[in-house]
Amino acid sequence: MRFMTTSDKPENTATGIAAQDWATASADPQYRAAVVDLLGALAYGELAAFERLAEDAKLAPTLEDKAELAKMASAEFHHFERLRNRLTEIGEEPTLAMEPFVAALDGFHRQTAPSDWLEGLVKAYVGDSIASDFYREVAVRLDTDSRALVLAVLDDTGHAGFAVDRVRGAIDADPRVGGRLALWARRLMGEALSQSQRVVADRDALSTMLVGGVADGFDLAEVGRMFSRITEAHTKRMAALGLAA
Amino acid sequence: MRFMTTSDKPENTATGIAAQDWATASADPQYRAAVVDLLGALAYGELAAFERLAEDAKLAPTLEDKAELAKMASAEFHHFERLRNRLTEIGEEPTLAMEPFVAALDGFHRQTAPSDWLEGLVKAYVGDSIASDFYREVAVRLDTDSRALVLAVLDDTGHAGFAVDRVRGAIDADPRVGGRLALWARRLMGEALSQSQRVVADRDALSTMLVGGVADGFDLAEVGRMFSRITEAHTKRMAALGLAA
Repeated sequence: MRFMTTSDKPENTATGIAAQDWATASADPQYRAAVVDLLGALAYGELAAFERLAEDAKLAPTLEDKAELAKMASAEFHHFERLRNRLTEIGEEPTLAMEPFVAALDGFHRQTAPSDWLEGLVKAYVGDSIASDFYREVAVRLDTDSRALVLAVLDDTGHAGFAVDRVRGAIDADPRVGGRLALWARRLMGEALSQSQRVVADRDALSTMLVGGVADGFDLAEVGRMFSRITEAHTKRMAALGLAA
Repeated sequence: MRFMTTSDKPENTATGIAAQDWATASADPQYRAAVVDLLGALAYGELAAFERLAEDAKLAPTLEDKAELAKMASAEFHHFERLRNRLTEIGEEPTLAMEPFVAALDGFHRQTAPSDWLEGLVKAYVGDSIASDFYREVAVRLDTDSRALVLAVLDDTGHAGFAVDRVRGAIDADPRVGGRLALWARRLMGEALSQSQRVVADRDALSTMLVGGVADGFDLAEVGRMFSRITEAHTKRMAALGLAA
């Protein structure tokens, strides 16, 4: 059931699911399951981001830096709260919705524990940016209520500007730092991709939505283009950091 | 300069500093320095509490428990923000105000790193409660503006009820846990006292205020009574937890 009134092209998001509210769109159980997956993944991602930023705050070289990271961590927690409340509102148990994504996200964080303050900043910046890009791509295909929520919790917590500023400063002070951090960013990207594949392989409803089955217009070619856009944006961000991607 | 209109007894806090607002009371440089110390200690205490709770969240046995701790950590961060903003408002550099207390608070946390979830809960509960009792005792002696702020940031973050509930549950399930946690609580109290002495020895303005020199009516006998009240409250809390103090 795709709720399309015509044979819309993928680009046309003004009709179909993207033009419906949650009450209408969620009548399709497969669409509903996909959105619950998405909100659960995003909620646990925010909770994990909270923990990671709080952890990185301990590596901060100054009290100002520490306070800055604590602020971002707290912002991530408030995003988590909104997602959890939304899951409850639509009659889902937040813990059950999050649990399928715990192993992949914990695995990612375990495999990429930063060894110092700069690695932590690069990780938070790269990780948040890729996740944001991905969710923004998905958001345009969602019903109006889910889209508004997803875009709201992706609001920049101020981390990007802070990370760019600190990392560029460190590279200016010692250019060799750039080489080490570029390798680190590549490792992060690789680990993120491998954990994403794990999630997609496990979660039928979610991957069906991503590949055109449920929400509007995602087909395999479009998924490929999406990954290209995300990779290009990553390359640009690395350049902005003064790193070769 | 004590701003007393009569030879008030210590109990009479309706006149003197406690009846003045900050603008009036802070004309006395020694009182001002003492309050800056107090706000600095409290601010760094909240930032350290944020870190500790976020760290403990990693030990949480369930996602609900993790989210509960993350919520409290976030509440502590907002308290920190209010204190930092207040320091800025009165023309003080928050970092400089906090720095004298970093070593003692970090030392306390380093010496008392919990080895599991229950030790973390007991530590947060015991530590927050003792700190709250202490700041409440001091608050009644402060000018009206400082008092309102200190009482506001001591507002219960919901941690006490949560910790009592979880710790009692664990002791019910295995009474031997009680013995271990009682020892742990005693160690925490000892370490807290030894770090407090370190701070008091280092900070003249603060300890002069505590011992009657600046704010209204604290004399050595009163400090003794204050410590008795705090210790008694601690004993009662330990009993509520099902632990012998």
